[in-house]
Amino acid sequence: MKVVDAVPLDDRGFAYGDGVFETMPQRDGVLLGLERHLLRLRLGCERLGFEAPARARIDAALAPLRARAGRAVVKLVATRGRGGRGYRPSSRPQPAVYASSHAWPDELDAQRSRGIEAKVLQARLVDNPSLAGFKHLNRLEQVLASIELARTPGVHEGLVTGTDGRVVCAVMANLFLVLGGQLVTPCLRRCGVDGIIRAAILDLSHEGRLPPVTVRDVGVDEIEGASEVFLTNSVRGLLPVRRVASSRFPVDGPLLAACRAALERLELLA
Amino acid sequence: MKVVDAVPLDDRGFAYGDGVFETMPQRDGVLLGLERHLLRLRLGCERLGFEAPARARIDAALAPLRARAGRAVVKLVATRGRGGRGYRPSSRPQPAVYASSHAWPDELDAQRSRGIEAKVLQARLVDNPSLAGFKHLNRLEQVLASIELARTPGVHEGLVTGTDGRVVCAVMANLFLVLGGQLVTPCLRRCGVDGIIRAAILDLSHEGRLPPVTVRDVGVDEIEGASEVFLTNSVRGLLPVRRVASSRFPVDGPLLAACRAALERLELLA
Repeated sequence: MKVVDAVPLDDRGFAYGDGVFETMPQRDGVLLGLERHLLRLRLGCERLGFEAPARARIDAALAPLRARAGRAVVKLVATRGRGGRGYRPSSRPQPAVYASSHAWPDELDAQRSRGIEAKVLQARLVDNPSLAGFKHLNRLEQVLASIELARTPGVHEGLVTGTDGRVVCAVMANLFLVLGGQLVTPCLRRCGVDGIIRAAILDLSHEGRLPPVTVRDVGVDEIEGASEVFLTNSVRGLLPVRRVASSRFPVDGPLLAACRAALERLELLA
Repeated sequence: MKVVDAVPLDDRGFAYGDGVFETMPQRDGVLLGLERHLLRLRLGCERLGFEAPARARIDAALAPLRARAGRAVVKLVATRGRGGRGYRPSSRPQPAVYASSHAWPDELDAQRSRGIEAKVLQARLVDNPSLAGFKHLNRLEQVLASIELARTPGVHEGLVTGTDGRVVCAVMANLFLVLGGQLVTPCLRRCGVDGIIRAAILDLSHEGRLPPVTVRDVGVDEIEGASEVFLTNSVRGLLPVRRVASSRFPVDGPLLAACRAALERLELLA
């Protein structure tokens, strides 16, 4: 089966970022968390006002990528397709689907065991409820934050604040902290991406298979008081944060270990 | 010369909207306002932290489109190109350039003489100074505003407000009003696109070839008190607004006429 590796110049995904994407881990041909990713993809298309491409088309796009052995990163993009007049979409959009396979990040296993260093960036995410939560293709805020992060060698991830200075997430991941012995993760109603691993942890918590998680606004000054800090991301899984500025955190905290064990049973981590 | 009509799947313009674009009128092979558009394109690439593609490459991309007779709309896109690791760009980006030619909008001449109807939309532009002013590829706010606009038949354009409710621009155009006999246009430091025609009017005004223009925040409630309202856009030129809600405005006001005459001398209008 042919792998499509080009996008028509008039695809609205290219023209305006008019689409959504998912990035997932693949292990020996199996896409981990695929159903969760496809659900989020569908909800994202709905937020943008078009119907997601049919499941058969998505499966056909993913099929040729499954031959890759071992671990890989698979990216799936759904756009509103071509057409429309300027910004105004066609009233009968013909959504497009694109899939690609990428090398597994070499450094990941080491980062999972040794932890990473993070810093709070100057770059902010703007409160934008109409675009918050889903993984659309308008990602310049993340690109600009990544450029700022790249200026500090040795720091692996950046923590990003919202308009009012609260900490929202990392550039490429969601954030969890243990504050007063309780799991806390920032609220994402105004900005940020509702990550698959974060959502799975919240689900497990609601089902009583993980301790309670509080979803609320988190001040930057609360970070130094945390007993554990970790990041979640579909590909990277759970990444302990060992340092933020002068604050150090354990890489083998008990709540991180509990989350990892619970997620491993869901077969979400590659 | 071959016209490139596809974008590599891993071009960052598609992946993240990591690029900028220009839309310009072409008349019998001549691109109107080309130098102004290329300057804005270069400044936009600079805002994103990469060097714009070389002029020779841009000219080569535009050349095959010049054969089209009569009026056409030419779109030029510059992206950071392929590569990088996720959001983080390569430290040596290889920018890409894409150009395409589109049919001239049929209804435009009638709209220029008869004026258009506009309404204030619910959709808002979020204050985002790091992305304000330049024409990047993250345009979901405009897409969502266009979808809202399409729900009101007979209304041609939507006026969009900022986070605090001030009116910023139209979905596809900049806004000018005549208030107390003076030209006024909303300030774009926090959001909106610094349009080529708007900038040309401001330049002409500074040079004394047009009356003074005040750039300031404009409240939605000021619109009804305007003696003229018009929109500016590179392709559409100057469009009189004849109605916003229950307020009616002349389509042949003296300040609109003065702006049109001055811009015609600059050969910016097709």
